[in-house]
Amino acid sequence: MKALAAANDLQRRESCWSHCFVKNLIDFGFKGSIYPINPSADEIRGIKAYKSILECPGPVDVVHMVIPAKFVPQAVEDCGRKGVKHIIINSGGFGETGAEGAAIEKDFLERAGRYGIRILGPNCQGVINTDPGIRAYCNFTFTKPDPGFISIVALSGGVAEVVHQAFAQMGVGTRIYASNGNAVDVTIPEIMRYLGEDEGTRVIVTYVEGLRDPANFMQAAAAVAAKKPILAMKAGRTREGAKAAASHTGGLAKEDIATDLIFKKAGVLSFRDEGHLIQAAAAFGSQPIPKGNRVGIITNTGGPAVIATDVLVGAGCTLPPLSDKTRALLKEKLYPEASIGNPVDVLATGTAQHYRVCMDAMMEDESFDCVFVNFVTPFFVDNESIAREIVAVNQQRRKPIVCNLMTDKQQWSEVVRILREGGVPCFPLPGEAARAMAALVQYHAIRSREASPIQLFADVKPEKAKKLIAEARATGRTQLDAAEVYGVLDAYKIPVAKWRLAASPAEAAQAAAKIGFPVVLKADAASVVHKSDTGGVALNLASASAVKAAAAEMKRAIAAPDLRFFVQKFLPTGLELIMGAKAEEGLGHAVVFGLGGIYVEVMQDVVFNLTPVSAAEAREMLDAIQAAPLLSGVRGKKGVNRDRLVEILQRLSQLLTDLPQIQEMDLNPVMAFADKAFVVDARISLKESA
Amino acid sequence: MKALAAANDLQRRESCWSHCFVKNLIDFGFKGSIYPINPSADEIRGIKAYKSILECPGPVDVVHMVIPAKFVPQAVEDCGRKGVKHIIINSGGFGETGAEGAAIEKDFLERAGRYGIRILGPNCQGVINTDPGIRAYCNFTFTKPDPGFISIVALSGGVAEVVHQAFAQMGVGTRIYASNGNAVDVTIPEIMRYLGEDEGTRVIVTYVEGLRDPANFMQAAAAVAAKKPILAMKAGRTREGAKAAASHTGGLAKEDIATDLIFKKAGVLSFRDEGHLIQAAAAFGSQPIPKGNRVGIITNTGGPAVIATDVLVGAGCTLPPLSDKTRALLKEKLYPEASIGNPVDVLATGTAQHYRVCMDAMMEDESFDCVFVNFVTPFFVDNESIAREIVAVNQQRRKPIVCNLMTDKQQWSEVVRILREGGVPCFPLPGEAARAMAALVQYHAIRSREASPIQLFADVKPEKAKKLIAEARATGRTQLDAAEVYGVLDAYKIPVAKWRLAASPAEAAQAAAKIGFPVVLKADAASVVHKSDTGGVALNLASASAVKAAAAEMKRAIAAPDLRFFVQKFLPTGLELIMGAKAEEGLGHAVVFGLGGIYVEVMQDVVFNLTPVSAAEAREMLDAIQAAPLLSGVRGKKGVNRDRLVEILQRLSQLLTDLPQIQEMDLNPVMAFADKAFVVDARISLKESA
Repeated sequence: MKALAAANDLQRRESCWSHCFVKNLIDFGFKGSIYPINPSADEIRGIKAYKSILECPGPVDVVHMVIPAKFVPQAVEDCGRKGVKHIIINSGGFGETGAEGAAIEKDFLERAGRYGIRILGPNCQGVINTDPGIRAYCNFTFTKPDPGFISIVALSGGVAEVVHQAFAQMGVGTRIYASNGNAVDVTIPEIMRYLGEDEGTRVIVTYVEGLRDPANFMQAAAAVAAKKPILAMKAGRTREGAKAAASHTGGLAKEDIATDLIFKKAGVLSFRDEGHLIQAAAAFGSQPIPKGNRVGIITNTGGPAVIATDVLVGAGCTLPPLSDKTRALLKEKLYPEASIGNPVDVLATGTAQHYRVCMDAMMEDESFDCVFVNFVTPFFVDNESIAREIVAVNQQRRKPIVCNLMTDKQQWSEVVRILREGGVPCFPLPGEAARAMAALVQYHAIRSREASPIQLFADVKPEKAKKLIAEARATGRTQLDAAEVYGVLDAYKIPVAKWRLAASPAEAAQAAAKIGFPVVLKADAASVVHKSDTGGVALNLASASAVKAAAAEMKRAIAAPDLRFFVQKFLPTGLELIMGAKAEEGLGHAVVFGLGGIYVEVMQDVVFNLTPVSAAEAREMLDAIQAAPLLSGVRGKKGVNRDRLVEILQRLSQLLTDLPQIQEMDLNPVMAFADKAFVVDARISLKESA
Repeated sequence: MKALAAANDLQRRESCWSHCFVKNLIDFGFKGSIYPINPSADEIRGIKAYKSILECPGPVDVVHMVIPAKFVPQAVEDCGRKGVKHIIINSGGFGETGAEGAAIEKDFLERAGRYGIRILGPNCQGVINTDPGIRAYCNFTFTKPDPGFISIVALSGGVAEVVHQAFAQMGVGTRIYASNGNAVDVTIPEIMRYLGEDEGTRVIVTYVEGLRDPANFMQAAAAVAAKKPILAMKAGRTREGAKAAASHTGGLAKEDIATDLIFKKAGVLSFRDEGHLIQAAAAFGSQPIPKGNRVGIITNTGGPAVIATDVLVGAGCTLPPLSDKTRALLKEKLYPEASIGNPVDVLATGTAQHYRVCMDAMMEDESFDCVFVNFVTPFFVDNESIAREIVAVNQQRRKPIVCNLMTDKQQWSEVVRILREGGVPCFPLPGEAARAMAALVQYHAIRSREASPIQLFADVKPEKAKKLIAEARATGRTQLDAAEVYGVLDAYKIPVAKWRLAASPAEAAQAAAKIGFPVVLKADAASVVHKSDTGGVALNLASASAVKAAAAEMKRAIAAPDLRFFVQKFLPTGLELIMGAKAEEGLGHAVVFGLGGIYVEVMQDVVFNLTPVSAAEAREMLDAIQAAPLLSGVRGKKGVNRDRLVEILQRLSQLLTDLPQIQEMDLNPVMAFADKAFVVDARISLKESA
């Protein structure tokens, strides 16, 4: 990027803006040439201005455009003729304002397409790049970042700006900032891939309210997250929040579980609190990734170490005891009153040498993967020296360090400066520091996830299932009948309780005899959806006469011309589970697993994942429900066959991948036993359009 | 407080400290006289020093003592002779260090007692009082607070200091700071009551790792919290955290649910994150308490309003729509592109007048109880004027306001100053601001809790229960046998499933016939505790012969000489619940209610409260479990008789209050039906000593 042109129009406000943009570029030390474009000014901020991009003397790499929407198409056309390939459009007034703006957007996009121009924006905050060879500030915000290793990317300029400001306020540098607003051309996944390749970026921070192209986002995020951490936050989680998001993006308010699942599957660290995200990023920006979750704590004050301990342990870290060697060393080197444990309390009177000895010991001690430093600055010790020792150890980059620096920043500005310049991530509250450390550990856990390829079962019959679905669709139905549902499950060898269809009460009794008593009897007709509400289900029928009587009663009560009887083995004593799936727009399906029966609704003890589901992911799902101990067996009660459940989830995943026509599936209950598991009731619905 | 003496010893470090303390007092503008006491200095910081307190010319109100522990008893004696009534002892080296220190502590306490001297500390941070008539800085920390309305009290100086610094960093003032360390005389509850009476204190912040005298704390906190908010955090929640707390306080590491229950019962706002507590305190320090949970949001940027919405709604606030009048007004006054809803988005170009119109409208609009302001400072609007309008509305104190101020504090320092001096609580992140607002709303909810006196049932027979317990104790048992357990429950009219005791299998069969089949048979012997693990329980016995056979089998298997048979009505179809209780040291009992059976262990869907339990509290307990919908009935399943459960909880509470000898009670299951509820199995154990 050698040159950059800023195009601006005549109007006072825009003129003021054009000055501001040029000033930003100059002040930020932009390394290329600047060509202000303005139809009425001869110079802007002392730099010669041009009436049109076509008059610029040199080649132009990037145009930063802040002119009213109506002038944009022609300006893009001019850029094309000039040979410009990259434009950042800050101005609003396009698709986000309605049909008229959308038409202008379409117009300039077509022109850009013809010239092979890539567009960032419009209606966006733009780009900041602190690379010493570039120093671009193509952004209408007001915070100048220090150079650093954190890159920020978001559609929403508002939140990107909040994050950006928070880093500046913390004295944490950033690398690249990109907010692409309407995102008509350059997308978030594209930017993410770029940042993945950018050597100066150690960690990527992003904020979303929903995803335009979920599959593409997931692919890009997964590829990048394998190399460097992506920290993400999704807002619009509540119904009201989604509504607020829709009102400012012009999108549709909808509940969305898919984004979380995408984050999880792609290995993105997901945050629900922007503060936690910012603090974690500060740690990732400067620290190596730990090799495990074992934390050593050094402190010179009691209470804050207790808070840090609670937070660390609550987030899955452990605080192992010191090794005998470390303990002996510290006994010798610290004050006799010091508390030699984990946390180590060097006392408020602890010296720089005490800190150094502790830190060195914990770096050496193989019991620890990371070191947490609590540091309050009493007036009676040499705090600057303590800070210098922390920095010296930090710069060895052996294990990650975070620091809870409790100080008056004005009074101890030198301590703050030493730690900041030494790359030690410092937080004023123990909880903040502890959560940042826990995030490092969590990323390690994500990167250590068991590699588990998607298993494809060879014994399945996709053609049979597809035929059943095609037949249902041919009759105009989106709801499969029982025979179709169980046929589809059979095709993927998903075990179902033995069943037969019968046309009459007498046939039902015969079917029951063949299946073996006791049985369940269900009314099966297109007109009967919620069977149990309409007397369409009879459980635990133990004899042919009971079956016949129940069927006769159903026939009387329901009186549907297409009524048939679905007879199925009754399995009363298993653990009731639920499996299910729901199509996710732009993705495959979300698969659900959890505790079944009435508890599904009340306890909501369910977990989700996206197809395709690997064996490792299926096992994770089993482990993730709160009722997981019931699966393994608890208090004398036998557990269930977990492997069988894992296989069923994988088969379900394969089924859903083969049959994208499926809108929803509901296997509820799946009855699980010590040896086997069976689907006992199931529903499948199809998408409205093929 | 007119005069204050600082006593210091000869040693270099202490001498340096004495200078520091005197300097602190002078710099902070202390309003009384200062008499440095030092055996070897003639003057300290230009103020005449005295060899002994006895040489001081005037009367002395408070002595601030920082001398080695061994000199403290004599110094206290001297203070007594001088007529001093209040001493703050910063020095450590007392009870916290072991037996020798504890002896010194005992010595000076006895002397203080003789002279009627009250002691704050020792081993404490001390006191800061920003009252303009006092301006005392008797503290060895280094942060000078602005005057304000928040008071801080904590044993732990470390965390009190973190909180104190955070306020200073935010530009939020404090009123009184008191950290009492070893707390050998003046206690936290005492300080809390003092702050409750202090007109300058609007909100009290406290941090605990455990409570010395829980009953006293609860009483004080309840009395004060009825007048002004108490914000508290308890750390040492995890096992590891409790251990860390024990290591720095010299206390015992123990799990502790009682502190949370005390907070809840006393109406204390409890926090699990010190940041949230600090932010909430900033809002309480300047804002009125809202009259409800309905929040109006004004913003000039999209994304941060979405985050705020999520947090507010997640914390139980609602975002009602604008009234028609407000909507019409804003349509007229704001930019045409502004989003007129809740949130109202005035756009980044929104002016001070736009903000003012919105704020006035929301103050006027009866749909709202509080107003949340999102304010990002673009360079192209008059941000100072916006800040001034926010302050103008804030100073009317009609409804509480919090502000998410997104800015570069250096660049927009005037905006920051205007809002700060105008008493607007400002937070840099939308989530922080939203949580602070939610805390205001939560305190309103606590203050609006239904007043519900403790109901005492007149039909109970405490004497009968006491006799049963005395008899068990007389035999040296702490575990009541079945007859005693059910006798105690009968005495409080807690309904139990019909039962009889039988000495032999034949008698058991007769008893079953009298109760009515089906029955449960349980082996009852002092030697049999976990009945179900030893084949000591047989469920659902439907005939006399089945009972006789089961009893014979138990007799064979258990072969205990004291074996009897407990025969009870079998109630299979109810909702299995659990109730129970556990004695809490220094308090009454913690009562538990929740989902019973195997789910107690796995789902841990239980809630706790402390005795005595009112009807309103019992109802709250029923509502608070996740399975609460099962109690009311869900999906065609009938609910249970909630009133009956509420009554049983109250009767249980009365029983526990009358019988403090009880260590633990376990009513599991309590079987609940649409009309009735019965205890089906119960255990009671007694405390080891009477």
